[in-house]
Amino acid sequence: MKTMEWKDNKLILIDQTKLPDDLTYFECKTYKDVILAIKTMVVRGAPAIGVAAAFGMVLGNIAGEDLEKVAKEIKASRPTAINLFWAVDRVLSSDNLLDEALEMYKEDIETNLAIGRHGAEIISDGDTILTHCNAGALACVDYGTALGVVRSAFNEGKDINVICDETRPLGQGARLSVWEMQQEDIPVKLIPDVAAGYLMQQNEINKVVIGADRVAHDGIANKIGSLMVALAAKRFHVPFYVAAPLSTFDREISIYDTEIEERGSEEVTHYGGCRICPKGTEVRNPAFDIVPKDLITGVITEKGIIDLDNFKEFFQKLKYE
Amino acid sequence: MKTMEWKDNKLILIDQTKLPDDLTYFECKTYKDVILAIKTMVVRGAPAIGVAAAFGMVLGNIAGEDLEKVAKEIKASRPTAINLFWAVDRVLSSDNLLDEALEMYKEDIETNLAIGRHGAEIISDGDTILTHCNAGALACVDYGTALGVVRSAFNEGKDINVICDETRPLGQGARLSVWEMQQEDIPVKLIPDVAAGYLMQQNEINKVVIGADRVAHDGIANKIGSLMVALAAKRFHVPFYVAAPLSTFDREISIYDTEIEERGSEEVTHYGGCRICPKGTEVRNPAFDIVPKDLITGVITEKGIIDLDNFKEFFQKLKYE
Repeated sequence: MKTMEWKDNKLILIDQTKLPDDLTYFECKTYKDVILAIKTMVVRGAPAIGVAAAFGMVLGNIAGEDLEKVAKEIKASRPTAINLFWAVDRVLSSDNLLDEALEMYKEDIETNLAIGRHGAEIISDGDTILTHCNAGALACVDYGTALGVVRSAFNEGKDINVICDETRPLGQGARLSVWEMQQEDIPVKLIPDVAAGYLMQQNEINKVVIGADRVAHDGIANKIGSLMVALAAKRFHVPFYVAAPLSTFDREISIYDTEIEERGSEEVTHYGGCRICPKGTEVRNPAFDIVPKDLITGVITEKGIIDLDNFKEFFQKLKYE
Repeated sequence: MKTMEWKDNKLILIDQTKLPDDLTYFECKTYKDVILAIKTMVVRGAPAIGVAAAFGMVLGNIAGEDLEKVAKEIKASRPTAINLFWAVDRVLSSDNLLDEALEMYKEDIETNLAIGRHGAEIISDGDTILTHCNAGALACVDYGTALGVVRSAFNEGKDINVICDETRPLGQGARLSVWEMQQEDIPVKLIPDVAAGYLMQQNEINKVVIGADRVAHDGIANKIGSLMVALAAKRFHVPFYVAAPLSTFDREISIYDTEIEERGSEEVTHYGGCRICPKGTEVRNPAFDIVPKDLITGVITEKGIIDLDNFKEFFQKLKYE
């Protein structure tokens, strides 16, 4: 099945906190269930959060709730990904909430296929591609953004290797991206986050492709650690691409105005149920960081690849298409 | 007690694989026990490995072994830290092996105190200092190199905060550096490795101080991840210091000639006994990386702080002291 499905007035989500060991499902019967799923990362990844939020609005509507209140609550569930805000507003302003949510569900898949097609052009035969976190099928309804690019290149018959970094603290790279690649027999290796720089220093990585939680004219916000990967890529002349749908773009703000979510300490002090530091250790746990424009080779969207230096021009041209 | 003690013809080591939860000891009665302790990281950290290796030679001598053979075996236990080679050769060429090893033990503590004195000069009141891995008392006989600098600044009454990154895959930052700081009530917080760049981007870190496994005229080799921290420090204009005794210096080679140890996959696939990725996942697990000279503000030694641009001149001046 896909990351989520709408069935019998319920939103069924793959429980991503249980992967890769257990493929189980989380049923949302109310919009509050959807909020819980987003907060606890049962569903995660900017595009997936957006579509789940749209169905959350539908559930609120079915229950006869005050939709303005529901919208506000859903938007507050995670502050960084812009898709959440975009999706809630889009459903709220539609005539038929369910139709709109189902349309967004369908669009998400089409968008990712288009991102994959455009992105595959920058992948060469023989490339080893590093990805950070999980911008895969699991981060969307299906197919994925960054991993969609990888899938498209692989399906075109290109001989590629994928390196997934672990992505502490929650291990989305180790748990989800590695698993997705294995499901489709795409050659994949796991590295600790700290090893990305070394592999680039050794010329063992040819491209970096990651997702984004928000794209603005001056950079992107994405999973914590993206910045350090980008700095290493710049140093060792490895092209650094971001794959993200246009729904992830914020054309108003500077990326530095993004609110960076700080998550609970247990994610850092524990791993897979094991405590990994002395009891009572204090932590910092920011969930995202900012990759400035000068570190980004291009942003792969469903409408082609944007050089952020030509941000305005890209959207002006789109208007006339 | 200190990281190691020589007692009744045995080398007693704190078992660092069991910290911070259990403070237990590992007894080496033979040189083979010492090799096992080095390989399994019961004892780790370049200076500590050096002194442990010296006592390994003593144990070989007591047992009447062929010392050339023992030296070769001990040197092969870990390839990257130069102190291991330096220590074995020094003991081998001495008249009394035990006296020489005990002298090195004493020297190590004195050296670290001197590094601490010199290093404290670059720490300002109010600084938040990031360190990577554990270049603390546990990486030496006592006091530490990078954490020796922190201790000296703290003991001088400076108001400082320490950030330890986790240092995957083996968590020396989370397990050992955090623990050492807590033992002495030095304010400390733990972060995932991926978060160092973000904290520098936010101007929350004023200095980086790390150790080294090898220092050459063109850079240093140190725990995997040091490179990515150094790149972030360069980007955000955070002074990046390396604290290392002169025994860690290799005046012959280029740092790029250092052999980088690749360790077993289970260190990456598991954490604290928990598997963190799908079964059968392939990994890369390099244990060290190279930080090029241009990213390093200075190397703090027992004889003062070296700018690697003046590497030759520093050693020439030392000769005349």
